[in-house]
This record gives sequence, structure tokens and C-alpha cells, in this order.
Amino acid sequence: MIWDDLDLELAKRRDQGLLRTRRTLQSPAGPHAIVDGRPLLAFCSNDYLGLAADPAVAAALADGARHWGAGSGASHLVSGHLEPFQQLEARLAAFTGFARALTFSTGYMANLAIVPSLVGRGDAVFADKLNHASLIDAVQLSRADHVRYPHNDVATLERLLENSTARKKLILTDAVFSMDGDLAPLTELFALAERFDAWLVVDDAHGFGVLGPQGRGSLAHLGLPASPRILLMGTLGKAAGVSGAFVAGTESVIEWLLQTARPYIFTTAASPAVACALLASLDTLASPDGDTRRAHLQALIARLRAGLAGTPWRLLHSDTAIQPIVVGDNHAVLAVAQGLLDQGLWVPAIRPPTVPAGSARLRVSLSAAHTLDDVDRLTTALAAVAAPAP
Amino acid sequence: MIWDDLDLELAKRRDQGLLRTRRTLQSPAGPHAIVDGRPLLAFCSNDYLGLAADPAVAAALADGARHWGAGSGASHLVSGHLEPFQQLEARLAAFTGFARALTFSTGYMANLAIVPSLVGRGDAVFADKLNHASLIDAVQLSRADHVRYPHNDVATLERLLENSTARKKLILTDAVFSMDGDLAPLTELFALAERFDAWLVVDDAHGFGVLGPQGRGSLAHLGLPASPRILLMGTLGKAAGVSGAFVAGTESVIEWLLQTARPYIFTTAASPAVACALLASLDTLASPDGDTRRAHLQALIARLRAGLAGTPWRLLHSDTAIQPIVVGDNHAVLAVAQGLLDQGLWVPAIRPPTVPAGSARLRVSLSAAHTLDDVDRLTTALAAVAAPAP
Repeated sequence: MIWDDLDLELAKRRDQGLLRTRRTLQSPAGPHAIVDGRPLLAFCSNDYLGLAADPAVAAALADGARHWGAGSGASHLVSGHLEPFQQLEARLAAFTGFARALTFSTGYMANLAIVPSLVGRGDAVFADKLNHASLIDAVQLSRADHVRYPHNDVATLERLLENSTARKKLILTDAVFSMDGDLAPLTELFALAERFDAWLVVDDAHGFGVLGPQGRGSLAHLGLPASPRILLMGTLGKAAGVSGAFVAGTESVIEWLLQTARPYIFTTAASPAVACALLASLDTLASPDGDTRRAHLQALIARLRAGLAGTPWRLLHSDTAIQPIVVGDNHAVLAVAQGLLDQGLWVPAIRPPTVPAGSARLRVSLSAAHTLDDVDRLTTALAAVAAPAP
Repeated sequence: MIWDDLDLELAKRRDQGLLRTRRTLQSPAGPHAIVDGRPLLAFCSNDYLGLAADPAVAAALADGARHWGAGSGASHLVSGHLEPFQQLEARLAAFTGFARALTFSTGYMANLAIVPSLVGRGDAVFADKLNHASLIDAVQLSRADHVRYPHNDVATLERLLENSTARKKLILTDAVFSMDGDLAPLTELFALAERFDAWLVVDDAHGFGVLGPQGRGSLAHLGLPASPRILLMGTLGKAAGVSGAFVAGTESVIEWLLQTARPYIFTTAASPAVACALLASLDTLASPDGDTRRAHLQALIARLRAGLAGTPWRLLHSDTAIQPIVVGDNHAVLAVAQGLLDQGLWVPAIRPPTVPAGSARLRVSLSAAHTLDDVDRLTTALAAVAAPAP
């Protein structure tokens, strides 16, 4: 039968210990998780500023529900564009310094909207090899050529652009790489985009809210201008603590997305109450409280890096909340994660194909909701686990 | 510059009156909309049961926010699978009669998850020509052959299946077609799926909550079994009144999606409070109150069809909440929509490419939140507008 293949494949993966498993949390998002009744200190969320369970953001969601109801009932282009979305778009544009913004239910949808609306058959997308899955799928959906360059390798990218005869060119990159925590060389990528008249599409899922003044994101962090050739995608379910995403750009490129992007046109708008929660979240992001949270996050990062310096644990070069510890072997990384779990710490083990073969890692992610003591508990727990052979 | 093309194309569309425009609602979703301070009687939402602004569903969203916060902070497979999602999965499985269910932030994401997880290069998807945009994109993403059959044409589909040498076959269809309101011949499609050992994937966006006992959807409406070769996709932002979607199927096919579907693995989970709202919404769907709402909706449909019988307005053969009035010409349909708007009625004009050329239409959609008087206002208003030449 048609389903035999997947039954066989599932059995094979089960035998090889390759099945992914979910843990159900009995607690709100945050460092202090409860799983199967057991408290765990978690280093696995992307709730970088601790806003996912913030009372003010939750209250705004509740107030929004009471005022606007739970659903929008239609797509934005029919009758689902309720006032909170209009306010959110205006706020995101002002915050990121672009002329206009458009919101989506997920970052995945936003990426699938952007790329096929800008390029198609006969065009080329120049993409970092470590780009997020949604960016890879976006290129596939666009039917443009997918030209991949080695991670952050500007020289190779330059050569590829020089040799390209594609009608339109688009440079596509994560700003902060989700499994490495490092930044893309956005200044250099922008210079190449200018020189070769290419679009530059930046997925700032892990930089928005964390980097730059007031958390305006990776472009602001690097002082890049709101150029008409840049589209900035940011997600609203990570540092912003709620859900959804946005694209910011010029008036005309955003209008173009609104007119042509199928994942914008053919989907029901998110809950209007979610937009209300995001307005409250953006208030906090841009406030002195937001600055305090970002400063505390930096202190946590410094504490972790100092705590592991001189130990066999190998941190990558990352200044962001994502602090991966590369172990290498698939079984070894699982053993380390289990060793931490035995001590009540939850750090996800990331294996291929999510990361390249031989680079299995612990993906430690820090949040402003962590304390310095939480970080010390992690370094202490790691010391009690046999480190991998160098 | 790279953006010149789209500036030109936007200007061209503007000149030809082809730009889509959004209206911002200053009111919650529902028949009684306020746009630019002006009250409009709206026939354009997919809030078929009037739950989008229902106080009990909104209260559940608010309570969920207070208890669980606004965000889940991570993907389901890392630490974003909070208890309300687990409850929602179990409830959806029980409600639809399948062994297991998986939730998504949008129906678009659910469809993009299903198809590429089941088929790939060398396989074939047999798809109705009027399928929703997200199903078309899902096939493109899968790299399987896209074999399209004329709308609801079972005989042609049979011939195509007979002649196919594809390794794996998948039949892909909307259950209720979004711009026509008619049902797919699911019983016949299931028989073909059995005969040719194909998957049958049913997008029940517009049937779930509306059709079948307790609103269990189109499969239940037609008495189809929970076969291991059927995957049921339902959306939760239409009749269910909130946002999101689910896929239901066997234990192993759902496990397969969880293990392999990129739009499930690589995206942040929705707000946990949204899952709480959906649990309340499903309570209502399955309750006597839900039955009352569905019966009222049927009465509205009958009232509209009776009101337009014998008039020049041409309704399609639809027994669902979607009651399109085909006008034909693009300019004519806009004139009719404007004529209704002048009388305070909002009915969207749908033009190509959303519908086939020459079949521009008013897409009237009814909701249990409408009254019989609301429907009478529509038939009266249509009588006051010059009907198109037959």
C-alpha cells in the first residue's frame, strides 16, 4: 500500500534512534519549564528577551481578545485587515526605518511571499549555504536558479555574481544564523548588491529585537541604510515574544508584495488580538526596559563564554543569544544532552541534516529571563559531563 | 535599477484599475463592519458560524493569555509544544475521527507540509484545476509532476490515473471550492484512490465546522471512512473563528509529517492562547449551540436562493455558505459591487486570475451571524442594481 514506505522508514529511524521527539510543556515559555511534572532549566527557546510570558504582553493579548474577538475571519485583502494590523504595520515601518511594512502569520510565509514575488524563471538567487529552511523553500517556489555560496564567503559570492547572466539577481541571507549565532557580513553583501544591481533580502529572525539601538535589528546594528534594494524580514515570535512576522521595504516593494504574493493574498489574517499583543511588545522593545533586557542578555552571554573559556567545550564565535557548543559526533551530542538532562538542564542536541554532518551541537540559547545563576548552573553541569575528545 | 520593473508594473495596474485594495476594519469581524467610520453590512468573511467575535471564544483567548502568556518561544520540536497544543491535537483527532492530528499556524503551511512529505520527484499529484493557491504551491514545492484535471471531472481523472506510470500517486482536492462553493465528488475520488493505491488529500477549509454532523466536515458529511490513505486538512480561522489549521490522519502518517515536514519543523509554534481559544471554539462547534448556528446558516442560504430565484442574478449550484453570483465581465462585476456599496452593502468582486477569465463574480458568503433580514437587504439591494445582460 502507498503508506508502506513511510511505515518502513519510520521503523528504520526508530531503530536507529533518529526519531525526533516532542516534549509537552506544562508551563508557559521560559527558562523554568515543567515537563512531565518535572522542573527543568531550559536553554532552548528563542524568547530572547523573555517577553513570551511577559504579563504586559499577555494582558494586551487578553484586552485585544475582548475588544476585537479571537479571529479576523478573512484574508487581509478581503475583510480581514482589522485596525490593529494597520497600527502594527505603521509601527514596524517606523521602528525599522523603512517606508512601509506588511505582516504575516509566520516567518515561513513571509519568506515564501518575498522571493517568488521578486524573482522567477531566468533569474538567480544567491543564497548562503546555511540559510534557514524557509529561505531554501522560498527559492524553490520562485523557480529562479538557486546559486548557493559557502557560508558568509563574500569573495566567492562576488565571483558568482560576476559570472552570472541572470536577468535579475537577488542576494538572500539570514542576518543571524540560527544554528551558529554568527552574523552575515551584511555591509559587504549590501555593497555587492549595489554593484551588481541585486535585491538584498535579509531574514533577521534572530536579530530583530536583540541587536541594534532599541533592538531595531541587524541592519541598524551595522548602520545600513533603508535602501530601496533591501527587504528586511523580521519574526515576531522570537525576541518579540508573540507570533508572526513582517517584511519592511519601500512603499512600492511592499505594495508589490500586497498585490502579488500568494502567501499574503491567499491566507486568513492572524488573530487581531495577536496584533494588539505585538503593539505592547514593541512598546517594551523600544523602551528603557527593553534596553535593560538587552544589556542583561549581553551579560549572560559574557558569563557563559567566560565560564567555558579554558574548558574542552568548544563555543562558536557568536556574540548573539545563540551560543552553540559543537560536539561533532551524533551519538556524543545526545549523550551530553542526556547528561545535562539528568542534572535538570534542557539543552537541545542539534544533528544533521539541520546542521552539516560531523558538526552536531548543543544549541544553547539565552534569554533575558535567565539569571546569571542559571548560566552558572549550565557551566557547572557541563563540567560534570564528560566533554568530547578534542 | 532592479526595482524599476515593479514600479512600472504597479503603475500599469493602477492605470488599468487592476490594483487590489484593502479596507481597514474599525470593527471586529462580523456582518456589521465599520470602514472609514461608515457602517457596512458585509457578506465577505469566512466566519461561517459567527465565532470570530464570539464572547466565549474571545474569553478563552484572554484566559489562555493570562495563564500561558502570548508566545510559545520555539518550534514544536524544540520547546514550543505547550500543553494547550497537545489538548488541541487530541480534540481534533477525536472530533474528525482520525487517530491523530497535528496543528499549524495557517492552512497554507499545513498544505505545504503535507504534499512534499508524501511525494517527490518521480511521483505525480492529480489535482483539481480549481484547487486553492496553497495546494498549487504545495505541489510545486514537492517537485512531483502536477497533473491537473478539469474541475470535479472524475472520468478524466480516472483516465489520467490509468495512464500514469508515476511511482506514487496523490489525489489533491479542495472539499468545498472557495470561489464556487460546490463540493468535490469525494466518494468517487476515494474510490479512485483505493483502486489506484493513491493518497487522497482533502483540504476542507470551507467545510470544517459547517458540514456533517456537529460540523465534523466534508468527509463526515459524505460518510467517508477515516481511511489510512486519507489526509484531512482543516482550517481553524474560518468556521472555527480563530486562526491556524490542522492535518488529521493515521498515527504513522502524522508521525511522518512531524518527522519530515519542513513547515512543521522549522517554524515557531503559534501562541498557546490561540490553542486555548480553539478548544473553546470546538466546544461550541460540537454543541447544540453549534447545531443551531448551522441550521440558521442553512436557513440563510435557502432564503438567499429563494430571494434570487427568477431574477437575472445567476447563482452557482452551491449548498454551502459560499454563494457566488457570476457576472462574467470584470468591469461589470465592479460596477455591481459599487452599486451595492452605495447602498451600504459590502460584497467582494472576484476577478481573474483568482477565478477563470470571463467568470468574474460577486462572492457572497453567509455567516450564522447574519439575520434573515440581512439576507433580504442583499436581495433588495441587488434588485436596485442593474443586473448584467444574460
